Amino acid sequence: MWDVAEELKAMLVFAEHRYYGKSLPFGASSFKDSRHLNFLTSEQALADFGELIKHLKRIIPGAENQPVIAVGGSYGGVLAAWFRMKYPHMVVGALAASAPIWQFEDIVPCGAFMEIVTTDFRKSGPNCSESIRSSWDAINRLARTGTGLDWLSEGLHLCTPLTNSQDVQRLKDWISETWVHLAMVDYPYESDFLQPLPAWPVKVVCQYLRNPHVSEKELLQNIFQALNVYHNYSGQARCLNMSEAATGSLGTQGWSYQTCTEMVMPFCTNGIDDMFEPHSWDLKEFSDDCFKQWGVKPRPSWITTMYGGKDISSHTNIIFSNGDLDPWSGGGVTKNITDTLVAITIPDGAHHLDLRASNAFDPTSLLLARSLEVKYMQQWIRDFYASLRNTR
Amino acid sequence: MWDVAEELKAMLVFAEHRYYGKSLPFGASSFKDSRHLNFLTSEQALADFGELIKHLKRIIPGAENQPVIAVGGSYGGVLAAWFRMKYPHMVVGALAASAPIWQFEDIVPCGAFMEIVTTDFRKSGPNCSESIRSSWDAINRLARTGTGLDWLSEGLHLCTPLTNSQDVQRLKDWISETWVHLAMVDYPYESDFLQPLPAWPVKVVCQYLRNPHVSEKELLQNIFQALNVYHNYSGQARCLNMSEAATGSLGTQGWSYQTCTEMVMPFCTNGIDDMFEPHSWDLKEFSDDCFKQWGVKPRPSWITTMYGGKDISSHTNIIFSNGDLDPWSGGGVTKNITDTLVAITIPDGAHHLDLRASNAFDPTSLLLARSLEVKYMQQWIRDFYASLRNTR
Repeated sequence: MWDVAEELKAMLVFAEHRYYGKSLPFGASSFKDSRHLNFLTSEQALADFGELIKHLKRIIPGAENQPVIAVGGSYGGVLAAWFRMKYPHMVVGALAASAPIWQFEDIVPCGAFMEIVTTDFRKSGPNCSESIRSSWDAINRLARTGTGLDWLSEGLHLCTPLTNSQDVQRLKDWISETWVHLAMVDYPYESDFLQPLPAWPVKVVCQYLRNPHVSEKELLQNIFQALNVYHNYSGQARCLNMSEAATGSLGTQGWSYQTCTEMVMPFCTNGIDDMFEPHSWDLKEFSDDCFKQWGVKPRPSWITTMYGGKDISSHTNIIFSNGDLDPWSGGGVTKNITDTLVAITIPDGAHHLDLRASNAFDPTSLLLARSLEVKYMQQWIRDFYASLRNTR
Repeated sequence: MWDVAEELKAMLVFAEHRYYGKSLPFGASSFKDSRHLNFLTSEQALADFGELIKHLKRIIPGAENQPVIAVGGSYGGVLAAWFRMKYPHMVVGALAASAPIWQFEDIVPCGAFMEIVTTDFRKSGPNCSESIRSSWDAINRLARTGTGLDWLSEGLHLCTPLTNSQDVQRLKDWISETWVHLAMVDYPYESDFLQPLPAWPVKVVCQYLRNPHVSEKELLQNIFQALNVYHNYSGQARCLNMSEAATGSLGTQGWSYQTCTEMVMPFCTNGIDDMFEPHSWDLKEFSDDCFKQWGVKPRPSWITTMYGGKDISSHTNIIFSNGDLDPWSGGGVTKNITDTLVAITIPDGAHHLDLRASNAFDPTSLLLARSLEVKYMQQWIRDFYASLRNTR
């Protein structure tokens, strides 16, 4: 974005989403209960962006008649696309990078996400995804006895020992999440998005997971080495802390509430097309958990009512970019819808790689994608000035 | 609409706007205070329509893959246009009849509305608008003395006698409102929209207002006769009741709250280009009144932020129809914006005349407008089925 902004002589504005970072409407009480959280919706966030653009155009000399482009990645990419859909008078177009606008209701299969995670691991080293698939049973078998639990706690160097079956489930969820996050940030160079990591971290992880046909304990020692890549790349940690969020400071509270209200994304696994334990999507279970945690119940059909679901063809000027390595591409737009609703896929790309700063290790597919993105943006800007001239 | 629905083999659905009619979310308490009124916004109303369409498509056999067209008049026309803008995945197009989508902020001059009212009266009879313009001073002069007040109360056959200057201001506001409403419902045949009225009621009214150069009292007796046409066409009323709403059952409470929050429409008069006493638009005064009445303050720029103001060119498939006699046409779209955002004007039309049932006295301009509207609708429907075929 920095490079492109310079090329297009543009100003970059980062708008902080309400209830994230420092934008807490009720300060420390913002996440206290559903009454305080009531103002956390995507619609309100989009309205904030609308107010912000209007405000900036008023206060910044020369900004008033300039075109604006919405840019975002991940949920921010979803918002960028939705902003162009709902406020087309405010932005001439949107770059929605790794934006899973179709990860709702039954628009895409709920298993697509985890299948892509699995594919990444399968392609990143021999037997890698099979080793992970075998690991769940190994954990389950050890977890049946007290000595097995003790071994697991020590073998995986957990900061807090496992004591019951709930802990074991948490462990498996935490490990699954680690593989998901590794797939998302499988970048071609050292990076520090969710965690500090080496280049192509999934390949690095898979080096430890070449042999699924070893003993349970050996397999899990290998799993520990693999986990260590993600959770202890610096080598400073003396144990692995399951209660540490794997996503750093991305604002998990706000996101958890949003998934429990509007942003209901069905996910599932079957253990066959993916390397995880089978888990079907259970709205009832999800809804009960939401009610327990936040006192709210999700509205799984609302997003498609509000934003159109699969049927977005009447909109214009949105680029949907996706990396094939990115599990979120499963819920993204990866084929052109119209001439002005276009998809760009980056075969070697993980989660919104195109929005990251230029790097010597950027793959060619990324360079092509970026230059195409800039071409579209330039077209939007030209069209904007042409229509300005016509209305004068 | 009934005729067109039959022609297009369509189902007609009338959606009642929340907080109007029987759709009161808190029953009798719905207008109690701003906390109960908090859910009365145009955005929520549009969302209701979205939910309703989804619901109907689910429960009505055969409805699922049918195209939907939004139709509305006046505020309903504004909503129809906005619905197409915000939910283009739900309706293939919108007929926005007499929809003043530009009666916000400074998009149109605040005096346009009352100038059109004045033009209607000027064209409906010799000296008609001049007589009305003279009447304000006549009232003011008489109101200076107690005997003058008494005469006014009796001469205008008011149910409740005037006792102070506040009453006199209310009288003038009530008379002004009557002229406004007459202009809005200046239909070519007997009708009963706001009140039971004769054909071309402004012409009928103007028959009493041919001579502005008579004595004060004679002028006001003529004004009484004119008011009587609107407020007592049946001849049953024994006096004129100023506290009776001139608009019957249109839901004045909800609308008053909406104008005090989102729907801030600036109006003004200067007494030169219009036949009213000069009154400039005073947001401060308006805001204070709103705070007194509802405990809320208006956000005069919000509607243009949300719905784009003048800049709606990126949308498609909206017909804006306006009657030249209708004061609301001053805030309407009366020129084509693009090939698919089209304006239809009806020279002899008052407020959303095109949405009324067919009548033997329909002017030719109306017949032409209606057939053009149907042509556009048929095109939208054809395009819808064509795109269905393409995506299969």
